[in-house]
Parts: sequence; structure tokens; C-alpha cells
Amino acid sequence: MDFTLNHIDPTTSARAGTLVTDHGIIETPVFMPVGTAGAVKALHIKELRDDIGAQIVLGNTYHLYLRPGPDIVEKAGGLQKFNGWRKPMLTDSGGYQVFSLAAMRKFTEDGVVFQSHIDGSRHIFTPEKSMDIQRSLGADIMMAFDECTPYPCDYKYALSSMELTHRWLERCVKHFAETECPHGYKQSLFPIVQGSVYRDLRIRSAEFISSQNADGNAIGGLSVGEPAEMMYEMTGEVCAILPREKPRYLMGVGTPANILHSIALGIDMFDCVIPTRNGRNGMLFTRNGIINIKNEKWKEDFSPIEAEGSVFADLEYSKAYLRHLFVSKEILASMISTIHNLGFYMWLMQESRKKIIDGTFGTWKDTMVKQLMQRL
Amino acid sequence: MDFTLNHIDPTTSARAGTLVTDHGIIETPVFMPVGTAGAVKALHIKELRDDIGAQIVLGNTYHLYLRPGPDIVEKAGGLQKFNGWRKPMLTDSGGYQVFSLAAMRKFTEDGVVFQSHIDGSRHIFTPEKSMDIQRSLGADIMMAFDECTPYPCDYKYALSSMELTHRWLERCVKHFAETECPHGYKQSLFPIVQGSVYRDLRIRSAEFISSQNADGNAIGGLSVGEPAEMMYEMTGEVCAILPREKPRYLMGVGTPANILHSIALGIDMFDCVIPTRNGRNGMLFTRNGIINIKNEKWKEDFSPIEAEGSVFADLEYSKAYLRHLFVSKEILASMISTIHNLGFYMWLMQESRKKIIDGTFGTWKDTMVKQLMQRL
Repeated sequence: MDFTLNHIDPTTSARAGTLVTDHGIIETPVFMPVGTAGAVKALHIKELRDDIGAQIVLGNTYHLYLRPGPDIVEKAGGLQKFNGWRKPMLTDSGGYQVFSLAAMRKFTEDGVVFQSHIDGSRHIFTPEKSMDIQRSLGADIMMAFDECTPYPCDYKYALSSMELTHRWLERCVKHFAETECPHGYKQSLFPIVQGSVYRDLRIRSAEFISSQNADGNAIGGLSVGEPAEMMYEMTGEVCAILPREKPRYLMGVGTPANILHSIALGIDMFDCVIPTRNGRNGMLFTRNGIINIKNEKWKEDFSPIEAEGSVFADLEYSKAYLRHLFVSKEILASMISTIHNLGFYMWLMQESRKKIIDGTFGTWKDTMVKQLMQRL
Repeated sequence: MDFTLNHIDPTTSARAGTLVTDHGIIETPVFMPVGTAGAVKALHIKELRDDIGAQIVLGNTYHLYLRPGPDIVEKAGGLQKFNGWRKPMLTDSGGYQVFSLAAMRKFTEDGVVFQSHIDGSRHIFTPEKSMDIQRSLGADIMMAFDECTPYPCDYKYALSSMELTHRWLERCVKHFAETECPHGYKQSLFPIVQGSVYRDLRIRSAEFISSQNADGNAIGGLSVGEPAEMMYEMTGEVCAILPREKPRYLMGVGTPANILHSIALGIDMFDCVIPTRNGRNGMLFTRNGIINIKNEKWKEDFSPIEAEGSVFADLEYSKAYLRHLFVSKEILASMISTIHNLGFYMWLMQESRKKIIDGTFGTWKDTMVKQLMQRL
């Protein structure tokens, strides 16, 4: 996997780059819609490709391991063929979902024993197993198996968890090197910086992760409930250490404001369920601020969802109609708000890239952060 | 509203016609997808228009009256503008849904008092009120307020119910004549033949309905549980009486086989929730038969949903992937099966029309009925 830095913003640390994978080229900064079970909820692959213009989609190893199972996805020729997307994909390691979703989980040095949230069946994830599953799923970018600490987290736990994550990383790297993509294309492995909100741990972890010389590096364990300022501080510290010439992925972030701030700190890749999950709950992100479409105030507002919007749904449907669909619990409500919000996130990333290339990202970002987070 | 009979099949009573409304031209025989609350479930308006090629959509007066309310739809400029469809629509009278959905209902000569299934609030529908609501909703075709008898239904009840339906029709016709479309275009009113499964009642009702000289005529109270042969017999009797030069609409029908048989009897218009509702439950209609996509047998079948299918989803997704989406309860499962099934129904209607024009409908229909109802 090849990464080229095209531009660096003169007033911030924002970067515009190009990432080349065997399934296509990705222009950064990039937002990856979350396709948990091999599908971005309420969205056709065609819409993801043609209407939204997504460049890369994330799949969740925990979900895909349980259903349909890595054997089925491997037989299909990998996730990109199984769901018809055919463009770049990234899979997480499965660790985070075990911690947040599994009915039971028990940590050992070896890995995590857990019970499925679906049927209670017992399973084990180890660093090696996570690599094997991700090999079968065949994502272009695989993630190291780590422990994502919660917030708050005491120093002692954060330290020992970080050390476990580092030992697991060494096992991931070894097993990754000993195995191959069963689909015949190249897969990359990204290690993950941990260390909770402790500056010294984050620095130690960033240095260890950098020493791996991976194709790209990720920052985990943030956006888990800590104040935004703390997240930005940790991200800044880590970006100062991670290699400049490799893509940097801030996992699970975030709101439009979180993303703009983090781009300014030097982050290239993002993923988050906010545009899709909050969309399904009636929260719409627009160029002028945030709309709660279920609100009574939109009942007779027959204006388009967003007149300046970039996807067909923005002009085709009115606010009053979308509100009616939410009130009536129509599936179409989720479909429209998902396509709208992801369209907005894609626009935000494209604009960010343009402004970085223009050299005006810094001032543009400050105006946008205020505007985008207003409540309409 | 203008109806032209273009062709009549030489060996059956099947007809190919053209219906001109103020919102566009409809080629018959036609199937109307059901858009209960102003939306065909799990489908974008754009898909209905561009991918499926629907010509006319049905809206349910009961649902739209309760949510968002006829005042909102009227302010939007009618249902065609409210949901962005902008092409022909038909609304039912609200009667059938009151009988099947309302929490409580009580009949009088005047109308039906009922409680909303949503919040238990009390309402009344009368023939005049149904006309007023449908005027506000602004559908091109409005339906008369009738009582749809269940099956089985004793002769005495069927007779008195039919007589009530006829008296209600006279009130509908009167009130319809005294009111106007608030949106400035033409609306038509279709009366409905009732009479349960009793030949003499059906004949009497068909004669009474024919005497109204309406723009089109409907047959109600069939496909409510009676044997298919009984439905065809009643439909045939009624078609022999209804005016030849007006469109004939068989309400709530049906499976692909039901539709082909009824086209052969002289029916021009259909609506049914089968393609959409059964689709959301995993039943797919194809050119070669019926697929229960949740079945284990499709688990590793990576072939397209239907290689000869007419909508993008048929080729873009595999059977194994669609099965996985159903098992994982993904919204996309409903989206794909809905677009597939409606695409199939549209194809079936277009093929029927071609065969009628070619003069080969009769033999084609017999082959198709057997083929389409096979279980794959």
C-alpha cells in the first residue's frame, strides 16, 4: 500500500494525501462509512458508490465472524465481492465489539473468551485468530487486535492494558507475516496507539507503534467519553510522533467538529457511526447546522431537506415529508437520513481536502466548526 | 380522465389500454405498488420512478388521515407533491383499513365510528368525510366509501352490506359532485362492486355500479380468504357486466398467478401488498418461481438474485448476501427484496401487455402461471 502526501496546510498540521490499495485509490482526509455486518445500514451499495461517493468502507470483524462467518465471506472471494462493493475496505480487529457487545467476556494474556450477543455461544479471539479472520474477510486494511480502554480509566490499568496491547501487536505482526491473503491481493496491517488520556503513556505507545514501520498507524481509545479537549490533546501528542509519511487513522471519530479539529492535528482517516446511527434517530447534519427532524417545528416546512445538499434525497424530499416518515416509523426515514448525513460527511471531507490544497484550511475550519454545530 | 382500449386478446378477455390522468399516462394492465403512509416501504421515490418504472401508486386514506393529516397533505399541494412522486396516485376510501386495523369500530347508516390503532383517539368516517379527505389528499383516482365484507359471510349479511355500500355510493357521488379538487386538477371517483361470493348479488351490484357511468369501476371484497376459483368466478361475472370502455380495477389482488388469471378475465388495474410485504419477509418472486431467501440452501449461493432480472439489485447482489442480510436483520434486506419484487411485478405487467398486443396472451399466461408459482 502506497501513501503520498500531496499537500500540508501552512497554518495547521492538516494533510492531503493519496492512498493506493489493490481495490482503488483513496484521497485523504477520508471518512469511512461503517458497514457493520457487511452493509452500511439503510443504504444500497450503488448509493454508497454513485450518490455518496464513498472511497472506503469499514466492516466489523466481530459481526462478520458471527454472521455469516469468515468461511462464507472467504468463499465469496472476500468482503468486497460478498457485498458487491468491490472497492477498498477496512476491517477492525473485533476487539472493541467484544468489549461493547458480547454477552460475557474474560481477558487472559492469550486473548478474550466471550459469548455471542446473538445466541450466547462461546468463542475466543486471540491476536492470531483476529488476523486469520481478517485474512479471510480480505479487507485491504486489517487492524491489530488491541484492548480499547474505557473512560475514565485509572493510570495503572491504562498502563498494563497498553502493555498487553503492545504484546498482542507483536503476535499480530508475526502471524500476519506468516500468513497470506487468500484472495491474491495485498492486505496491510495497521497497529493501534493506546494509553488512555495519559500523555506519557500515549507518547510511549506512539513510539512503540512507530517502530513497527507499518503501512499506516491508528489511534484508538479516544472518543470514548473523555472531554473533546482531552481527545485533541492526546491526538496532537501522538501525531507529533507517528511517522509523517504514513497515513494516520483516528478510530471512531466523530462529529463534524471533531473531524475538522482532528484533520488540523494531522489525521488522515476517520470512521464513526454518528452520521448513520444518529441519522436513523432523526439527527441531520447540514452546512448550516444540526436539524432534529422529528421536531414539531418542521411539520409544515415543505422546503427541501437541504437546498445546497449534494445527494438526490436533499432536493427530492421536504423536511415536512421526512418528519412524517419518522413519525410514521417508515423505513424510508432511515434511508433518507442516512444518505443525507453520509452525503454531508463526504462533502465535508472533500471541502477539507480542497481547503488544504488551497492553503486556507485553518481559517475555514474555525468558521465551519461554529456553523456546523448550531442547532437549527 | 380518458381511457382508450388499444387491444383485446383474441383468446381471452384480456385488454391493453391507455389511461390519461392530469399527472400522466398509464398503460394497462397496470399494477399499483402500495404506498400506505405516502411511501412505498423501503423504497426511494427515485427507485419507484427510474428503476421499477411504476406508473401509479396507491396511498391509504386511513393512514394519511391519521398521520400526517389531510390538512398537511393539502397544504403541500397534494400527495403527489408531498412525497415528491409527482405522477398519478390513487387513494382508497379508508373503509377497508378501518375494518382491518382500527382498535374499535362501530357501524351505523351514517358511517363508521372508530378508534385509531396508533393512539386510541376516536374518529368518524362517513361517505362525505371520505370524499373530503380524498379531495385534500388530491389523488387522481378516489375510491367510493364501501364496506368490504369478510369471507366467509352469510347471504343475509352480504345482501344488507351491499345495499349499504350502494346507499353510501349515492352519497359519495353527490358529495363528490358538490366539491372540487383543491389543487386545480381533475380527480375521478371509482365506485366499487360488492356482494361477497354470491353470484346474484355480484350481478346486482355490478349493474348498479355500471349505472353510475363513472370514469372507472372497481371490484372489492375479493381476495379476502375465499378459494381462488371463487374469486375468478365472481370477477368473470362482474367483468361481463361492467362497461367495456372503462377501466376495471380488482382491489387487493394478488399473487402473480392471481393477476394473470384476472387479466384474462378483463381486469386492467391491480394493487396488492404481496410483493412488498412478502418481500420484507424474504419471499422473492422470480421468472422461474418463488424463492424463500432465508432458507439455508442459499447460504453459499453466490449467483445473482436473478440473472435475468430487470432492476439493478437483481445483478448487484448475490443470493448468499441477501440471505445474510435477512439473517442479520439489516434494513438493506427489505430494500433489496422490495425493489426486486416490484421490479418483477412491473415486468410481469409489461410482458402481459406485450402478449395482449401480440395476441398470444392466452397460451403465454398458462405457461407462466405454472412456472411462476413453483417453489425453488
